This record gives sequence, structure tokens and C-alpha cells, in this order.
Amino acid sequence: MNQKLGRASIRLEQPVYILNSASVVGTKEGEGPLGLLFDRVGQDDMFGCRTWEEAESTLQKEAVGLALEKAGLRPEDISFFFAGDLLGQSMATSFGISAYQVPLLGVYGACSTCGESLALGAMSIAGGFADKAVCVTSSHFASAEKEFRFPLDYGNQRPLSATWTVTGSAAFVLGGEKGRKARARISAMTIGKVVDFGLKDSMNMGACMAPAAASTLEQHFVDFAGQPDDYDKIITGDLGKVGQRVLIDLLRKKGYDISEQHMDCGIEVFDAASQDTHAGGSGCGCSAVTLSAYILKQLEEGNWKKVLFMPTGALLSKTSFNEGMSVPGIAHGVVIETV
Amino acid sequence: MNQKLGRASIRLEQPVYILNSASVVGTKEGEGPLGLLFDRVGQDDMFGCRTWEEAESTLQKEAVGLALEKAGLRPEDISFFFAGDLLGQSMATSFGISAYQVPLLGVYGACSTCGESLALGAMSIAGGFADKAVCVTSSHFASAEKEFRFPLDYGNQRPLSATWTVTGSAAFVLGGEKGRKARARISAMTIGKVVDFGLKDSMNMGACMAPAAASTLEQHFVDFAGQPDDYDKIITGDLGKVGQRVLIDLLRKKGYDISEQHMDCGIEVFDAASQDTHAGGSGCGCSAVTLSAYILKQLEEGNWKKVLFMPTGALLSKTSFNEGMSVPGIAHGVVIETV
Repeated sequence: MNQKLGRASIRLEQPVYILNSASVVGTKEGEGPLGLLFDRVGQDDMFGCRTWEEAESTLQKEAVGLALEKAGLRPEDISFFFAGDLLGQSMATSFGISAYQVPLLGVYGACSTCGESLALGAMSIAGGFADKAVCVTSSHFASAEKEFRFPLDYGNQRPLSATWTVTGSAAFVLGGEKGRKARARISAMTIGKVVDFGLKDSMNMGACMAPAAASTLEQHFVDFAGQPDDYDKIITGDLGKVGQRVLIDLLRKKGYDISEQHMDCGIEVFDAASQDTHAGGSGCGCSAVTLSAYILKQLEEGNWKKVLFMPTGALLSKTSFNEGMSVPGIAHGVVIETV
Repeated sequence: MNQKLGRASIRLEQPVYILNSASVVGTKEGEGPLGLLFDRVGQDDMFGCRTWEEAESTLQKEAVGLALEKAGLRPEDISFFFAGDLLGQSMATSFGISAYQVPLLGVYGACSTCGESLALGAMSIAGGFADKAVCVTSSHFASAEKEFRFPLDYGNQRPLSATWTVTGSAAFVLGGEKGRKARARISAMTIGKVVDFGLKDSMNMGACMAPAAASTLEQHFVDFAGQPDDYDKIITGDLGKVGQRVLIDLLRKKGYDISEQHMDCGIEVFDAASQDTHAGGSGCGCSAVTLSAYILKQLEEGNWKKVLFMPTGALLSKTSFNEGMSVPGIAHGVVIETV
């Protein structure tokens, strides 16, 4: 029953299906190129709440509720939640999904959390530990700026390498039985390690994370004896335009050319020119909502057959930043195929 | 291959062994009742570092290094790390164990993180997803006070319901083969949900967490059709003296009397009277170092045969506290038996 493969990968012997999913986003995301594909777009970014943190919790709550509704399931059908976010002590998760009263396994991988939650959720199903699992992650532009950078009221300038945190959450219902309308299938994953190139610029997180994406991707190719053209798309979470260039260059040096297959959720989710988002979108929500609204749709429609979904995370806190530490990265890859 | 049991539990079909473990603590813990049992006691609480956060990272690094050494393993023998801590964005973990270059699955369950990491680590082994895994968690008194409460220099008074965050880290090496000297065996677990009784006093976290411990414990008894006397000890992480009383009372109302079996790591780790720790010890490190140094020793020596190890977490951040939110709790139970 060994499903371990190579140094860091897993090939699932039991298929795990994404039974359904849902995405809820803020106004800016609703005005972006993927705007019409999201399940719900808020009227403003407060979602009827008092604080940004509560608004982010509400995003998670609504995404889970919608995903369950679309899958025709109730909370009591779900064995475990695998969930996390960017706020200190994952507060959006703790307050967002507690009302469902589902056992919770909290995860943290910065903006790679969506990939990590899918990997662990898929393991829980494939190992027979869970009947169904829900994986949910979120981010919110305003709560993230408050957590990591400056008060919004400062109106501080942002360099062109900076990304814009996506206000959004997506939830994915996983199960071992295909049912009638599973959206896609998870077949394998590669777990990333912390990669630290010593970069310290929290306004250029694409460059901080690209080495981690390159590391996980190279390991994935080694573990599966694979090549870039095994995939219709190799999809990172939020490298943005700067990080994309770094990733492609780093991999070229390793002998892999992914320039044909590479796509970045952060580049897709906003129209940088008209939306003033500079290098692209970012945050746990960025890859999650793009997976739910756009990537799974392409797989369902048969436009793509097999993708490597690999969200990237920048491992920083305001304390580590203020103490002069570097910004290491991490990236987890999940292979998602048509049903 | 269904290993799921009841609403929230898992019974492992493949045995998972704690091959070895190690604990590293600060000076105050070294002077406490368990002082002589820890593998390493620091000369001061800075562990040769510039900042408290780096010191906490060093605790994790040393605990992992020692545990690997005691198990006769190298980092490349370990499939995955399951790791987390209390700092914002789990920074002690990100900077503490990156040098080992082992794929990392970051987890967050506040002070329940040790239980969560063992549960997920055991699943990864029992499911055939990992050959060996290391689970590591930490806390540090000074970094936790800075993260959650007041600058130490204020010297603010602490009510008698307050606990003292343990400076310590423990790492556990899990594997599917017993080998010659496995310390114990993980046979089952019960995953907790978020339980919120609406309490808001961050200086009385025992009371905030006790309802979660009661919920997980009741669910555990229901799922396994079990009783308190199935266990030699039922061990919570850091309820302290106030939380212990609340837990025993809550469970009595549910028809379970655990007063004979209950033990709390926070009560064991310090001598409250002479060490001025009030209600007891707390933090991710509290249950972790007590498990490694004391609980596993009792199992090895045959004094106990089977325990339920159930660390408890208080889900708060300084932001949620300052915004007037409650302090919900969560608790994850892991059944640990003699080999």
C-alpha cells in the first residue's frame, strides 16, 4: 500500500474526487477578467461585517456553505475540514467555519495553503480516514495589509513588484466516490520544503517564492520521471509577473522549459493594466478562487486534461520582517485531472 | 479500508510507532518537577540567539536534531515534517526546521498543535503516504507574551487563572515499522471541532479551552463506545487547575467521571506553588515536552498501558482579542499505547 513516490511525492492509489466547489470574492475580483465565473461577488468588501477580519471569516463561511449546497451535502456529511488563512493564528478560519461544527484540522502554508489543504484532504480520503472532506482557504486585501504591511489610510506607494491580495475564499468538497457530477480528480501531489534564497523584500514576494516553486517543480519531475509537457498547464498561485520570470529562468537552468505550460493565478485574476494591481494578485484566496472558478471549469469542459496546481507561499510575519529576517518560500503541487 | 469511526474518530489499521522523541526546554522548565527528564535544558532562554523568536526556532531545530539522532535517522530518511507553533504565521517553524530540507506540512491548532501534528503524521504513515514522519511543535514564554499579551518590561500582574507559557519544543519520529526501540504506538485519534462558549478572558484560557476538551472527549467515548477507565490516564495539554475543574464538571454532566484518570500537562510541568506559575503551564510546547519526557517514559516502563493524549488549544490572536471576539477552543485526542 505504499503510495509514497520519490523524495517528496505521493501517487494516490484510490482516486479522490473534487465533488464540487464554490468561490466567493470581493468587488475588485468581480470586476476582473474572471469576474463572471465566481459563484458570488460581494456588494462591498465588508460582507455586512464590522471588521475586515470578520469579513474574511464570512467569506470562508459562505464559500463552505455554497460548496456544500452545490454538492448536495450537509455539514454532518463532512468528516473533516482542512482549513487555514493568512491572519495571525488563522483567525479567519477559527471564526469563519466554527458554526458548521465539523472537526477541524488547521493548516498553514502561507499562500500555498490551498495546495496543502487539498493534499492533506486527499490523503485523508485515499487513506480511508475520512468519508468526505472540505478544504477551504481565504484572504482579504484589507486584513492582509493590516496584518503584514501598513494601515490602508497611509496610502503608501507600492512598487511595481508588489502584488494585490485577493479578497476571496474558495471551498472544495472532496470524496472517494465520483457521484454524478464530480468536477475533477486529484491523482498525485508533491509536498514542498522551505526554500530560502535570503531575499528580504516583502514588496517583491514573487521573487521570494519563485525558488520554492522551482524546487517543488523540479522535485515533482524527478519523482514522477516527468516533463513539463505531461501537463496542459503548470499553475502557480501568486508569483505574479516578476516571480513568473524568475521561475521560468530557474527551471531552464535545471533543464526544464515550462514557458509553454506555465500559468499563474495571480496574473489571471486581475487585469493589471486597468486594475492597478502591479505584478498580479496574491493571497491564499488567489489560487483557491481561480482553481474553483476557472481551472476546474477548463477541466470539466475538456479544454485541459491534466494540470499541476502548485500554490506558492511566502513565509513571513510582521515580526520576522521587522527583525530583519528573510522571506523564505514554500510550494505544494497537486495533480488535478479530468474525471 | 475504512479507518473512519463514528463522527470524528479514526482507528488505525496499520500500527504507527513513535520510534523516538526528544525534548528541549528553558531554565524554568528545567527547574520544575520534570526537569531531570528532559533531553536538554538551555543555560538561558535565548539559546544563543538575538531574539526570542529565533530562540524558539532554535528549540525546534534542536528537538528535531536530537530526536533524529536518538532514532538513528538522518533528515533524508524523513518523508514529511508536520509542524507548527503559536507565533503569527508559525514563524518559529518556518525558520526553525528549514535547514533539514524535509518537505513540510504546516499545521495550526494553537496549543492543540502537538495532538494535531501526531494525528496527521500517523495518518500519513498508516495511509502509506510516508515512510517516516517527524512531528514537532514549540512555544516560548517570551515570544508568546509578546505575541499575545504585554511587553515583558511592563511587569503586569497576572491573575491566578493565568497560565505560564512553557519554553520548550519536542519532536516525535513516527514510522510504520516497530524497530528495536520504539517508545510507543499510536492506535487511534479523535479530531476536535471549534467550541465557543463565548468566554473572552485571555487570562483564563483553561476555562476557554475546557469546553472543547469536554466536547472531544465525549465524542471520543461515543465513537469508540468507550469509558474513562479504558485509559490509565486521560491527559489534557494545558487546561491548568481552573480548566481541569471545568472539564471534570462538564463531563460529569454528560455522565462521564474522569476525575480518577485525568492528568494535565500544564499542572505537571511546573510546581505552581514554588515557581509562581499560577494555574499551570501552557503553550504548544507544554504538552509536547511532557509527552516526550514523562508520558512516553511511563508507557515504556509499563506503568501505564494506554493513554488518551489530548492537547487543547485556545483560538485567539491579538487582533481577535482587541476586536472583542471570544476565545474559542479546540482539542485533538490521540490514543497512545505501549508497544
